[in-house]
Amino acid sequence: MHFRSVETAGEYVARLETGADWRTEIEALAAAVDADAAWFTALGAVQDAELWFYDQDEGSYDPITFDEELEVASCVGNVSLLDGERFAHTHAVLSRPDGEAVAGHLNAGTVFAGEVYMRAFETPLERAHDETTDLDLWPL
Amino acid sequence: MHFRSVETAGEYVARLETGADWRTEIEALAAAVDADAAWFTALGAVQDAELWFYDQDEGSYDPITFDEELEVASCVGNVSLLDGERFAHTHAVLSRPDGEAVAGHLNAGTVFAGEVYMRAFETPLERAHDETTDLDLWPL
Amino acid sequence: MHFRSVETAGEYVARLETGADWRTEIEALAAAVDADAAWFTALGAVQDAELWFYDQDEGSYDPITFDEELEVASCVGNVSLLDGERFAHTHAVLSRPDGEAVAGHLNAGTVFAGEVYMRAFETPLERAHDETTDLDLWPL
Repeated sequence: MHFRSVETAGEYVARLETGADWRTEIEALAAAVDADAAWFTALGAVQDAELWFYDQDEGSYDPITFDEELEVASCVGNVSLLDGERFAHTHAVLSRPDGEAVAGHLNAGTVFAGEVYMRAFETPLERAHDETTDLDLWPL
Repeated sequence: MHFRSVETAGEYVARLETGADWRTEIEALAAAVDADAAWFTALGAVQDAELWFYDQDEGSYDPITFDEELEVASCVGNVSLLDGERFAHTHAVLSRPDGEAVAGHLNAGTVFAGEVYMRAFETPLERAHDETTDLDLWPL
Repeated sequence: MHFRSVETAGEYVARLETGADWRTEIEALAAAVDADAAWFTALGAVQDAELWFYDQDEGSYDPITFDEELEVASCVGNVSLLDGERFAHTHAVLSRPDGEAVAGHLNAGTVFAGEVYMRAFETPLERAHDETTDLDLWPL
């Protein structure tokens, strides 16, 4: 277990723009408040979504596309630097009209409505390649 | 993307009352700490639940009722003013004994046990009708 | 509804160790920062998982084991004292390669990758047996 103490530079609530991309909007929020590191939770609804599932053996992401309206029942993630750019690592639980839930790593999704709470950290966090998992993780 | 900086007036942990309504309890917590705006995450279990799914084309909510015991695997939401009253916008992921998950906008649910973390904000947030989505959103 | 005001002693981000147990890692984080009470949210992936479902009538937990790779789409929980030891009460939503979600009380899971945000509270929280639910809850 690797950890770092963080200090909060500011906290924000945001309403995501209808028609924009969910993850891009979160990265735009981080940019707007000049945060290179942040943690967020969110809820709302999307008009479509692309989830990625990481194949732990192959070390690659497999995308799944949902071309349908979905509630965003849960969204948890963080912002840090990946190759020098702000990246919002975003996991979400989405649901269909009958309540059925699908979930995973949210690469993209067209916002219908979204409400976000973000804590911007003073300390930047930067991802680097991790050999064990073949993922970009924080070398805390 | 529309956002506002918020300042926290206080943070709280709560245990929801067995037999009470999940969302009403969260609104009661906001009232008890005199918060007109707040963000929360929660977990627990309910004895039943009513989820709402928003039909983005029709602009109306369709309810689904679950008359069964469910774990509250995730709950994310916020409190703000709607028509002058505190409203807890609450999304949840619920699960059955075999692990199957259902999720969405939680309108109601009878608490079996519930644990909540709430941040109360100094700045009030107020919802207003949004023409694009036909929802009550924050005009941040 | 029972609640307590809490003060944050520190906030932390952590990367969980690949191959370690998810819940044990969170308890190790709380121990490392000397926190007897905390709230956390997290995301990541596990190599397997054991969820527990509470039978509200029987007053007992039924375990379900998943011997497969799963994304941790959402994880919400808290740390408090149970019989004098730190216990991370952990709920999670997990997902399969096709997006299917399973969820519940996470007893155990082998970390593939995990990112956690934890707020450590100054005030300790201690669980005690609750007669109504037959659970160990906070007598706030």
